[in-house]
Amino acid sequence: MKYIEDRVEDIQITYIGGGSRGWAWQLMSDLAREPQLAGTVTLYDIDYEAALQNEKIGNRLKDREDVKGKWQYRADKSLESALKGADFVVISILPGTFDEMASDVHAPEKYGIYQSVGDTVGPGGLIRGLRTVPMYVEFAKAIEKNCPEAFVINYTNPMSLCVKTLYEVFPGIKAFGCCHEVFNAQNLLAAALKDIEGIEGATREEIKINVKGINHFTWIDEASYKGLDLMPIYKQFVDKYYENGFEEGKTGNWMNDFFESANRVKFDLFKRYGIIAAAGDRHLAEFMSGNWYIENPETVMDWKFSLTPVSWRKEDLKERLAKSKRLVKGEEVFEVKDSGEEGVRQIKALVGLEELVTNVNLPNEGQIFNLPRGSIVETNAIFRRGQVLPIVAGKLPSAIQGIATRHITNAHLILEAALEKDKKKAFVAFANDPLVNISLEDTEELFEEMLKNTAAYLPGWKL
Amino acid sequence: MKYIEDRVEDIQITYIGGGSRGWAWQLMSDLAREPQLAGTVTLYDIDYEAALQNEKIGNRLKDREDVKGKWQYRADKSLESALKGADFVVISILPGTFDEMASDVHAPEKYGIYQSVGDTVGPGGLIRGLRTVPMYVEFAKAIEKNCPEAFVINYTNPMSLCVKTLYEVFPGIKAFGCCHEVFNAQNLLAAALKDIEGIEGATREEIKINVKGINHFTWIDEASYKGLDLMPIYKQFVDKYYENGFEEGKTGNWMNDFFESANRVKFDLFKRYGIIAAAGDRHLAEFMSGNWYIENPETVMDWKFSLTPVSWRKEDLKERLAKSKRLVKGEEVFEVKDSGEEGVRQIKALVGLEELVTNVNLPNEGQIFNLPRGSIVETNAIFRRGQVLPIVAGKLPSAIQGIATRHITNAHLILEAALEKDKKKAFVAFANDPLVNISLEDTEELFEEMLKNTAAYLPGWKL
Amino acid sequence: MKYIEDRVEDIQITYIGGGSRGWAWQLMSDLAREPQLAGTVTLYDIDYEAALQNEKIGNRLKDREDVKGKWQYRADKSLESALKGADFVVISILPGTFDEMASDVHAPEKYGIYQSVGDTVGPGGLIRGLRTVPMYVEFAKAIEKNCPEAFVINYTNPMSLCVKTLYEVFPGIKAFGCCHEVFNAQNLLAAALKDIEGIEGATREEIKINVKGINHFTWIDEASYKGLDLMPIYKQFVDKYYENGFEEGKTGNWMNDFFESANRVKFDLFKRYGIIAAAGDRHLAEFMSGNWYIENPETVMDWKFSLTPVSWRKEDLKERLAKSKRLVKGEEVFEVKDSGEEGVRQIKALVGLEELVTNVNLPNEGQIFNLPRGSIVETNAIFRRGQVLPIVAGKLPSAIQGIATRHITNAHLILEAALEKDKKKAFVAFANDPLVNISLEDTEELFEEMLKNTAAYLPGWKL
Amino acid sequence: MKYIEDRVEDIQITYIGGGSRGWAWQLMSDLAREPQLAGTVTLYDIDYEAALQNEKIGNRLKDREDVKGKWQYRADKSLESALKGADFVVISILPGTFDEMASDVHAPEKYGIYQSVGDTVGPGGLIRGLRTVPMYVEFAKAIEKNCPEAFVINYTNPMSLCVKTLYEVFPGIKAFGCCHEVFNAQNLLAAALKDIEGIEGATREEIKINVKGINHFTWIDEASYKGLDLMPIYKQFVDKYYENGFEEGKTGNWMNDFFESANRVKFDLFKRYGIIAAAGDRHLAEFMSGNWYIENPETVMDWKFSLTPVSWRKEDLKERLAKSKRLVKGEEVFEVKDSGEEGVRQIKALVGLEELVTNVNLPNEGQIFNLPRGSIVETNAIFRRGQVLPIVAGKLPSAIQGIATRHITNAHLILEAALEKDKKKAFVAFANDPLVNISLEDTEELFEEMLKNTAAYLPGWKL
Repeated sequence: MKYIEDRVEDIQITYIGGGSRGWAWQLMSDLAREPQLAGTVTLYDIDYEAALQNEKIGNRLKDREDVKGKWQYRADKSLESALKGADFVVISILPGTFDEMASDVHAPEKYGIYQSVGDTVGPGGLIRGLRTVPMYVEFAKAIEKNCPEAFVINYTNPMSLCVKTLYEVFPGIKAFGCCHEVFNAQNLLAAALKDIEGIEGATREEIKINVKGINHFTWIDEASYKGLDLMPIYKQFVDKYYENGFEEGKTGNWMNDFFESANRVKFDLFKRYGIIAAAGDRHLAEFMSGNWYIENPETVMDWKFSLTPVSWRKEDLKERLAKSKRLVKGEEVFEVKDSGEEGVRQIKALVGLEELVTNVNLPNEGQIFNLPRGSIVETNAIFRRGQVLPIVAGKLPSAIQGIATRHITNAHLILEAALEKDKKKAFVAFANDPLVNISLEDTEELFEEMLKNTAAYLPGWKL
Repeated sequence: MKYIEDRVEDIQITYIGGGSRGWAWQLMSDLAREPQLAGTVTLYDIDYEAALQNEKIGNRLKDREDVKGKWQYRADKSLESALKGADFVVISILPGTFDEMASDVHAPEKYGIYQSVGDTVGPGGLIRGLRTVPMYVEFAKAIEKNCPEAFVINYTNPMSLCVKTLYEVFPGIKAFGCCHEVFNAQNLLAAALKDIEGIEGATREEIKINVKGINHFTWIDEASYKGLDLMPIYKQFVDKYYENGFEEGKTGNWMNDFFESANRVKFDLFKRYGIIAAAGDRHLAEFMSGNWYIENPETVMDWKFSLTPVSWRKEDLKERLAKSKRLVKGEEVFEVKDSGEEGVRQIKALVGLEELVTNVNLPNEGQIFNLPRGSIVETNAIFRRGQVLPIVAGKLPSAIQGIATRHITNAHLILEAALEKDKKKAFVAFANDPLVNISLEDTEELFEEMLKNTAAYLPGWKL
Repeated sequence: MKYIEDRVEDIQITYIGGGSRGWAWQLMSDLAREPQLAGTVTLYDIDYEAALQNEKIGNRLKDREDVKGKWQYRADKSLESALKGADFVVISILPGTFDEMASDVHAPEKYGIYQSVGDTVGPGGLIRGLRTVPMYVEFAKAIEKNCPEAFVINYTNPMSLCVKTLYEVFPGIKAFGCCHEVFNAQNLLAAALKDIEGIEGATREEIKINVKGINHFTWIDEASYKGLDLMPIYKQFVDKYYENGFEEGKTGNWMNDFFESANRVKFDLFKRYGIIAAAGDRHLAEFMSGNWYIENPETVMDWKFSLTPVSWRKEDLKERLAKSKRLVKGEEVFEVKDSGEEGVRQIKALVGLEELVTNVNLPNEGQIFNLPRGSIVETNAIFRRGQVLPIVAGKLPSAIQGIATRHITNAHLILEAALEKDKKKAFVAFANDPLVNISLEDTEELFEEMLKNTAAYLPGWKL
Repeated sequence: MKYIEDRVEDIQITYIGGGSRGWAWQLMSDLAREPQLAGTVTLYDIDYEAALQNEKIGNRLKDREDVKGKWQYRADKSLESALKGADFVVISILPGTFDEMASDVHAPEKYGIYQSVGDTVGPGGLIRGLRTVPMYVEFAKAIEKNCPEAFVINYTNPMSLCVKTLYEVFPGIKAFGCCHEVFNAQNLLAAALKDIEGIEGATREEIKINVKGINHFTWIDEASYKGLDLMPIYKQFVDKYYENGFEEGKTGNWMNDFFESANRVKFDLFKRYGIIAAAGDRHLAEFMSGNWYIENPETVMDWKFSLTPVSWRKEDLKERLAKSKRLVKGEEVFEVKDSGEEGVRQIKALVGLEELVTNVNLPNEGQIFNLPRGSIVETNAIFRRGQVLPIVAGKLPSAIQGIATRHITNAHLILEAALEKDKKKAFVAFANDPLVNISLEDTEELFEEMLKNTAAYLPGWKL
């Protein structure tokens, strides 16, 4: 890297999962908009062809006049050589394919267990975790060997487990995990500000919050806008919309979009615990007892959110593949726009161009002192040249601490099970998930089936 | 106290709840059998007449030839004067009456929530906790004032909350909580030893165990008899009896006794977690997700334990009252026999007559280092002259740590709610109990009803 | 307070020690320069006349054209009424008089114990602590009663003990301690940047550092300027100036100023521990073994710093009293200039006008996780509307952790001794200070003498 | 192992350092006296001839009529094969020779640094630590490979560092460290009991104590004999003998024995801290500031203990070598007598023959919760079949916590330095020892010299 006046050049970014048609394009777009950074992005993907397509798409950009950030893209077949000399590593992969994900999400349904996402906790999240760990073991080892000083930004779920695996294998790694769920909570606060106080135009960045929790189960106990305390405003907002929910999604109606909701789960949790749940309803619901929000499709409909079917994801992927072809061929022009993600701002801060406070997932060194030391927690952190330092977020309220601890300990068991290829340990965690509220016999059956469906990603296991 | 050769005389024991027809008689019996101790037992009870009756029953004993321990019994109307100068304080009370307990246990049933005991966790345990805390606040203050150096032995449930309250109010108190549930687990191990290995005659004391957990949710990860490791033996035992259960109760059949079980819950938990659950099935079931063992009366019957109805307790009390009258009048002779409790052995150790290792409930100072510091945990401890020192029991397995933490944090919330008379806080804990798997609206309704039923014991609350 | 557009009005600041002719004037000056804030400053001082003088001096300011911040000043005879309704409380007092301080600093000299400042650790610091605690107990109680929500900014030494006492008495207090020693370290880094790299003009705020430690014994393990790592630059700087020291003080020569030094202690510590000591040499020397830097006046001279005599402080005070008179009478014009302190910027951040990252003293909740939880530590923190959240600074290096822990535990003993008026406990801490490297008998003699000299400030003690 | 009725046979003990003419003979003697145990002792030593001699000496025993414990002795040239299948491993070695020890103890004297033992802390202890770690790394690896389930008993100094290294290299090891220093404190308490109360005949085992601290810096805050509290008795005892000391050694006069003392340091520490120091004066003195007890030989003489010269150890070794020859040749009969050590009783407890409570060195899991987790601490523990469980000893008093932490953190630095062969790190620890109260330049000189003297035991270091 070269720091020249107010620009940094020759930055080496390696993107693991660089064939992606979602996150990778967002990064390209954000880099293209940023005049203070320049360098090379190396794209690594087990689907090398996909990486090659993105190389082409990316390299088209730097000649465009509207593009301020000039980057070279390069696909690489080897993880090791892709990482050599990297300053930053971005990891954003799909662990397995949507076929495995279909098993994660839908196999439990015949036992009456429903999951809205199935990628974090619940039977689906845990099995996904089992097959993700070995991939992250490989990444961590390759990073330790090829670019031990690089900052590593993870976007993959299950977030906590991915980041935990990286630190477990290479304790000196400079990794952190990023997730935009909390951004939505800031936007909802801005909506409340407008709805209750009539104050318009507050940006997400102006909504200052104190975040604490674990990824997808995060909480806000302080929120302000300039001199205004937003907590009492949010309370009024919840009271107003508790029954019917509040929607502000792009489609205007949660029923039209598998990713939208009417925030009713969030409001119910506010009434129960008195603090603001900061993740989307689809994620939050999976952390609580199965009967509350997700007992069956009717309950879910009452709470006004969706059980995202994996079939939809498969369809959506087809569309993105088609779009990729058009982009490669030049039949469609790549749209450069703000992705809403913060990766590029984080990079700017880490090279010394600015200072940034935002929420990230990091090992708990004290930022939430009633969660286990070393577990991956999500809080604010400050980004500066060469450092990401978490900000002390204070204790989680007791009731939430109890629920979070159960999910944390389960995740740690999954990690151990994956590292030791220990089926018994994996079963203990699986059977202990709050959504798995079925008999021991049924649990064993379901576990066997799901494990079999993901067996291709469990090398060395005795199944 | 006077230590004379191998005897200690002039011991002052104060018994809070001294009118009891259960635990008080057991203590009398054990003291009568013990030749190395002598002194006075002061009986305090809000039912003074009951204490007076026990005074009479107790004072009859010392003239009997078969009685080796000579004690003076004395009822006292005042808690303060009863405690003055005490060396030991025993607390064993019923918080409220069986009417409140009937509400605790049975009110939730119309919402489909069943409880086998209802005195520890679950909606019943939490509401019982709310009304118990103010009583223990009073005890703690009176002990600090009148006998700050006394050892305080608690037998009342909810155990953890009672002991926690004592320490919260008077941090210098020397209190610990005793519970015989773990003894039954030792006896079950002895039964396994006989059944699997054919070794007979092992006493409970010879079954050495490492205990860890919270009261009524305790676990054993090491067990031995002389040179023999009992863990693999217990595994065989579980495999043999998993389907049909194993019974060894007095009645020979769990269906004849509300306190017996066929240990099927214990065996199921062993299969799930790989370590031995050390409390009775009726207690264990209440700590787990509601659907597993206690979804409805049929599930309970399948698992071969009972939902103890409070009506039975009321009947049983009538019988004990009648017996008390006969004992006072001399129509029946008080039977002196080993109660199986350890209070007297603990007293002997604490005055310097012997050394004892047994399980007790104490604030966590490090004995289980993956449970919160200061929470009340149950582990082995060593009793010596003037000291009860907990033994480091090691970590709880991750999966169990998660469940235990949730109950601990809930109990802490109940304590705070009771101390601050904060209905909102009490509700958070109530709604957060794993058995309360119902809608927010129903939860509020049930909470209001149960609180109303126990309102006489919530002085100063705004209900 | 009223937040109106980008200004906040009606702020109530209470200044305890408001008769001061040093810190109070600096605050006045900084407030006068700040256009976005306005309100009232209430001056409380046990020397009411002094507060009245400052009232007059302060009220002159608001009519001056060059003054942008308009404040009302008001002296108050009563601590309670002064605090009523305060939004901010500033505490900056001299605990006792310079006579007691003369004993603190100079009484130990006849036993061969020298102290350069004598207000933090060492025999002087500990005895000063003993007499400061009762004052802070009173402040904490009055704040809890009159303005529990106020932010409390402490400038008094011994810093850690003052802040600790506030939290001990009123755990809900929003107090933090500020000290400018670290600013000097930032300036030294800027000097190194200029000296080694030839880069001029870096401001203190642009030197980004990670601070960790306890007040006056703080350390920097990361430092950067824009994209530049300052750690290797500082290493070169130390190598260059290790022998002769480096000076940049106002007077240009440490021998002309009791507060200057040639940074030789700092450089020696860098060579020993490999990280940057962030406090002044006069403070650092007192924390280390007595023989290293402060064995006798000759050693001190070799290391090129000074033993500040209290007689100088007395002289200096006379000058400041004279100046005060001139200012009151209007014979001298109050100079409005940047004090270099950050109090006003912190207030701006806390009312929501900006965001600030700076170093403060706060109870350890996890920000330095190898120092005791609850001890007062100095790290960076982020200031936002209504919140001061410490930033996780990471572990102290082992060797420094050991030394810091000894001073922390000693301070805690002094706090306990002061609260319990327990002479024995105070002695244990006193005799355990690393500078008190004398026989038990001499220690007792010195302790008795110093205690006697400060007895007027130890009400209720049995001396 | 075979547990047959009340005996255990076929026990495999491996003795690392099995050529020793001190500890090895004591073990032989204790095993010979114990009728309930039998098996094989494998002797491994880098001096194979010495091991062979002990094999001969040991094998003579089992035919003697007065010998109740029948053991086979066998010297083995290979560490690996010696460990194969071991049930117990005893490690008692001299790290290096007395030549290195002479440098440890005496090299610092020319800088005015005196050490009474030089094997635990101080410059000598730290350098000894540096050369010991690599040996223990080898032991730990060989144990993990050949007998991972064996219990490992360490007797070598520096105790904490030896045990810490074992756990660092093989975290699953079942190792603990034993030291008899605390036994002497129990004997001193028995002497006080006799001297003050006139009660004779109390055995060491009857003196019940609560021990806490780190090896050679241990403290007793509770002590009793039957029903009697020994703490006030010890206070009287100290008051009586403070000035002149109290001696009960074999020789009757500390001046005749380099290992005796008049307990004056212990008494001084009692007056300073109010609790009983439990190690010998020679050890305790080295932990405190250098000026207190050990500034120079005269100070030491005043305090009535000795600076044990290594020349004496060399002479003593010659005598023991001569004795060994006589024993091998049968010119002298091996005396079977109680060694006073507890190794054999510990083995009995660990195989299930009895239960034992005694003090040992173990990783801190919570037994002393104000010392760092994972540091090696000395407290009581309970020994049972297959388990050594530490007993919670409570907090160390603040003042002692501070001093202990400094030594702990220094030891951890030495461990890191030794593992990483990092001279700079070793220097930081060396310079930070409280006895090294000299200038940085002298410290560097001394460090270089001492490192050179021990260089043969620092393979792979760049010196």
